This record gives sequence, C-alpha cells and structure tokens, in this order.
Amino acid sequence: MAIVLFTDFGAQDLYVGQVKAVLAARAPRARVIDALHAAPAFDIDASAHLLAALAPRYRRGSVFLAVVDPGVGGTRDAIIVEADGRTFIGPDNGLLSVLWARARRRRCRRIVWRPAGLSASFHGRDLFAPVAAAIARRRLTRRWAVASRGPRVLLGADDRAAVIYIDHYGNAMTGLRDDRRPRSARLRVGRRRLSFARAFEDAPRNGAFWTVNSLGMVEIAANRASAARRLGLRVGRRVAWSA
Amino acid sequence: MAIVLFTDFGAQDLYVGQVKAVLAARAPRARVIDALHAAPAFDIDASAHLLAALAPRYRRGSVFLAVVDPGVGGTRDAIIVEADGRTFIGPDNGLLSVLWARARRRRCRRIVWRPAGLSASFHGRDLFAPVAAAIARRRLTRRWAVASRGPRVLLGADDRAAVIYIDHYGNAMTGLRDDRRPRSARLRVGRRRLSFARAFEDAPRNGAFWTVNSLGMVEIAANRASAARRLGLRVGRRVAWSA
Amino acid sequence: MAIVLFTDFGAQDLYVGQVKAVLAARAPRARVIDALHAAPAFDIDASAHLLAALAPRYRRGSVFLAVVDPGVGGTRDAIIVEADGRTFIGPDNGLLSVLWARARRRRCRRIVWRPAGLSASFHGRDLFAPVAAAIARRRLTRRWAVASRGPRVLLGADDRAAVIYIDHYGNAMTGLRDDRRPRSARLRVGRRRLSFARAFEDAPRNGAFWTVNSLGMVEIAANRASAARRLGLRVGRRVAWSA
Repeated sequence: MAIVLFTDFGAQDLYVGQVKAVLAARAPRARVIDALHAAPAFDIDASAHLLAALAPRYRRGSVFLAVVDPGVGGTRDAIIVEADGRTFIGPDNGLLSVLWARARRRRCRRIVWRPAGLSASFHGRDLFAPVAAAIARRRLTRRWAVASRGPRVLLGADDRAAVIYIDHYGNAMTGLRDDRRPRSARLRVGRRRLSFARAFEDAPRNGAFWTVNSLGMVEIAANRASAARRLGLRVGRRVAWSA
Repeated sequence: MAIVLFTDFGAQDLYVGQVKAVLAARAPRARVIDALHAAPAFDIDASAHLLAALAPRYRRGSVFLAVVDPGVGGTRDAIIVEADGRTFIGPDNGLLSVLWARARRRRCRRIVWRPAGLSASFHGRDLFAPVAAAIARRRLTRRWAVASRGPRVLLGADDRAAVIYIDHYGNAMTGLRDDRRPRSARLRVGRRRLSFARAFEDAPRNGAFWTVNSLGMVEIAANRASAARRLGLRVGRRVAWSA
Repeated sequence: MAIVLFTDFGAQDLYVGQVKAVLAARAPRARVIDALHAAPAFDIDASAHLLAALAPRYRRGSVFLAVVDPGVGGTRDAIIVEADGRTFIGPDNGLLSVLWARARRRRCRRIVWRPAGLSASFHGRDLFAPVAAAIARRRLTRRWAVASRGPRVLLGADDRAAVIYIDHYGNAMTGLRDDRRPRSARLRVGRRRLSFARAFEDAPRNGAFWTVNSLGMVEIAANRASAARRLGLRVGRRVAWSA
C-alpha cells in the first residue's frame, strides 16, 4: 500500500518530515512516495487540474494525501474522495473536485474526526495524515468519516485553458488534455502563436513550441531553454487554440 | 527505530544521498526521515532553537543526526546528547545545547571514534552517520564515545527573540515559545507593531500579523503573501514584545 | 539491493515521484536512494564527470538510474554499463562514458526493449526505471538488452579542467581529481590565482581558496561565503593549474 503526497509544503521545508513522522508512527508498513510538494500554493484551480493529471501515474489502490489549503484554520471541510480505484484525502476547497467530476466510479465521505490539539495551520500533519494512515491500514470507521454526496466546492470536469504548472526546466504545463487536435494547430499565448513539435530534438534550438507532455497534457516548451522565462509565463496565464 | 536528519546540507544537493548510503549500509532496517536540510547554515543559534522546537514532533526513541557545522575540519568536538528520550548526534558548537539546557532527563557523551579517511569537510557522512547507525542498532560501545558532563558550547535554555527560520511561503518563525501571552499583545519588528491572528483566514488579506505556529512558536505571517518579503525579514532579525 | 538516482529532474519537481512509483511497483523490495536530482541539465560533460566522482560513494552492487538527457525523444540509444561492480542505466550520450573509460572491469549492453506507450520526453520513467527494476530483481534477459562494445559517445578518462558542479553553499567542484599536487600550487580561474587550504577553518574569513573536497575532487571554496558568487563561477567555467 502506497501513500502518495501531493502538497504545496515545499520539498526543502520542515513540513513534509513532520507528516512522514506521523505516517511512520501510524502506518509503519506503508510506503510513502512524494509526488509533488510544489503544487501552486494559492491557485486551487491549477492544483486541482494538476492532481487530476498526475494521479493516474500512481497505482490503483494508492492513498493520496493532497493538501493545497490556503484556507486552513477556516471553515472549509475535510473530505475523502474515492475515484476510479484511488483514494484522496484533502480539504473540500475544490482541490479534489476535478478528479471527482471526471471519475466513472466515485464515492465521497466527510471527515468528522478531529484530533486533540489540532493546530490552526497544519492540518496536513494533524488531521489528514492520521486519516491517510487509517485508510492505508483499513481502519477507517464511521467515527472518522460519514457518507457525503460529494465535494461542496465543485470546479467541474472541463479542461483548464491556462498554465497550471511550470517545472524547473521552464516547461509550462497547461490544463488542456491532449484531444488529438491536429498537429497543425497553433496554441496562442499572449501575442505568440506556437507550433507543435513532438520532442525537444525536433524543435528549433531555443524556439518555443507546444507539445504533448508525458502526462498527456498540452505543454509549452523550448529546446534547451526555459519557455517560461522566454515567454514570461506564470501559473494562471491563459492559453487558447488558434484558428 | 527512526533516524531523523536535521542539517543544512540542502535537500536538492549531493550530500544527503551520501549520508543515506552510509545509513543504508550500516543500519539497513532503520527508517530515515528528512526533518530539514535547510537549517540556517551559518547561524548556530537559530538552528539550535529550531531543532529544539522541531524535535518533539518526532517520536521518543528517534535518533537525530543534526549537522549545522561551519567549523567542520577545525577543533570542535563531536557529541551525543540524550534529552527526554531522544538521542542527538552532532558537533559540539552549540547546536545541541538549547535542547540540552531545556531537558529534564539528559546525558552527554563525547565521540572518540574516528574513521579511517575522515574528510575535512563532511563529518556528516564520515563520522556522524556511522555513529547514528551504531546507536540505531544499539551497538554503541565505549570505543565510540565516553561520558561527558555536557556540551562545551552552551547557548542556554532561554527563548531567542529573533527570526530563526523562514519557510517557503515567507512565514518567519521566531525563537519565542508561546507563553500564553495575551492575544492583545503586539510584536515589534523594526518599526512595525504586529497584532495577533489565530489563523490565516482570520487575518486581513495581505496584512502581516503574529500567530502561534504548528510547533507552538511565535511566528510572523501574512495572509496569502510572504511576510518575509513584505517586512524584509531574514534569519537573525530581532523581535520584541511591545507594551 | 539499492537503486541510486542521479538525474537533472529536480528534487522539488514532479518527475522523481513518477520514477519511484514505477520502481515501487516493479521492484518493491529495492531501496531507492536519491544521489542527486540537480545534475547540470544541459552539460553532459560536467554531469559525466560528476557521476564518475560520486558513484564510488555508493556500495558495489548498486544499480544507478542516471539521466541527463537533453536529447530525449531523438535518436540516441539507451545503454547499461557495468563498471567495477556497479551498474548504470542511462542514455548513450556520453553521460556514462567517463566512468566507462576509467573502469578496470567493465561491460556494456544496449537496451532493445521498448515499452508500449513510450513518451517522447520521459524515458527516465518509461524506459530506464523498468530496466533498473529488472536488473535489481535479476530479471534482465536478452529480450531487454544485447551485448555491445561500449558507449558510442565517448568523452574519455581524462580529468575535466572546469567547474562541474556548484553546491548550495556556493562551493564549486571541478572535474580535477586530487593528484597529490603540492599544496603550494595555485589554481587559476580567470585572473584569480587561488591558494590551498585544507579546511574551511584554516582559510581566511571570506577569502576564496582551493581545497580537496569530500569526493577527492579539487574544489573552489570560500570560508562562510559563496565562492561561486564571489568569483562569478558557473558550471563549465575553465580552471588551470598555475606555475
């Protein structure tokens, strides 16, 4: 059983270790895999699309602890979403709602358990990690969570025509899934209209292009250069298909 | 048995892997958890307070390899500190002395073992990791370490009225423990006097405030913004309670 | 059995997790150690020298997944190199050729297996990780790889008189191995001629110097300061011994 971490906690920061300490104590046999700790911190929409794109790369049966949670300590709920064989624990702020909307088989529960000494700012450690451990050990009872119709904050199943993630090479992933669009199509970002290239090797040196990345998403890249810097891209920047 | 790493080696750098290779070879059954590899590199005082704040989040019985060691290769000693059920291995440069000063039950030993081929710059790998592995396997004998009265460099048990860590969101943790100070108190940093907020959601958007963080420490934060950038904060910056 | 990762994927990015998911599924008992995910992305020569310097710190028997691969998706081959008891899987673009040239006992195979759905940009996940898992489980057959005389792209066994890596402290490692050169020698970088110091403690505060680092390589450092920033160093910058 694997517990997969998808957060904005920062891989180099002091939060992930505390989550892992809880998981090691409560589910010592679970394998923990860091999927990403650099999810866009204040952009739930982008993070929700990114999580939906990334999750299928992890095996069915995996338990995801998913936290991008600028409203921590406020009134948002905590939920458990099962979607096509994977389980996700996280805030009910939209983060789990894109994969929810796209799932064929799905189920939602609302977390009612609260730990003694719940901090106002670190539910990843205090609330979500114990729940993830309980699920990994198949110990989750009604004391922990109750049935729910679904997330309250719903972002829908549609693609997102915007940059949702920029990697350290400077490649900019969009929330557009590859829809078999003709490779002659142009992707518009600002005043630029980008052509397709299959791989970095096929692209003109330094020129920006669009491609389908290894998650099956439309991505803006540049050969041996940072597309994000070259085009001034940030998470949230809109893109569109051009005639 | 968990071995917890607290260093300034950089999570993205080539040092942590070498330490883990030694631990895997010498204590293959120990679980290794990265607590932090971004401890303030040249500020022992801040790192000592940060380690004292962070350690209780890891289970009793944990073995900490703690290295912030700008004087590596010089004349400082290497020590083992047991404090309230946790064991810490590191340089005798003050790093372990705050938790030592605060411990109710404590014991100190001086490391006398030296490996063949000890490098001048990487005692974390060559000296501290083998000692940590020996402790994790309960194989530490007098050949390795001898009794000592305590650390030679002592920073004391008092709080530190300064920023000791800035996380990647830009929150600035101070070395002040929550002392149940009235929530009407103001925290002074430079010419600013900050009010309290319990959680990010309760704070004015973008406004800086003080809060008690998930380690029980006084922290300067800003809602959906970097308090450090907004206020120009760095590790070492002094703070004070205001009348 | 350890699988050691040496890549330019970025420790904070979303690629390493996907590789680990494949390894967890295909070689669940193997221990995975992150050696480095910040190898110089577009400098194969520097990365090849860095890998050759780093590999001996990992036990014989280790399986290295080594990926610095700006030509992914193009025509370069994929190879398996065994060198002095360690096994390396990676692109045939020179990355494995320095350790190949220096090995006393060595063997090369060419990977002929291709997965269904091989992505154009992420062979680390789709191709190299399954091969590494098969080797770790001793399941590699002729279906996977065939004998080869050696890498096609050969960089040779010689040292590299240039900066090959800059760590987060700002120390600049060169591709020069310690050749017992007299400690009175000066290392020239641009117009500066640097003197030797054994350890940071022995160096003048803030002054830049050359030393032999913990991998046995000549390194440019500065006491409690970033040598790279002070001297304006980047990976690829040439150095030379001075009379």
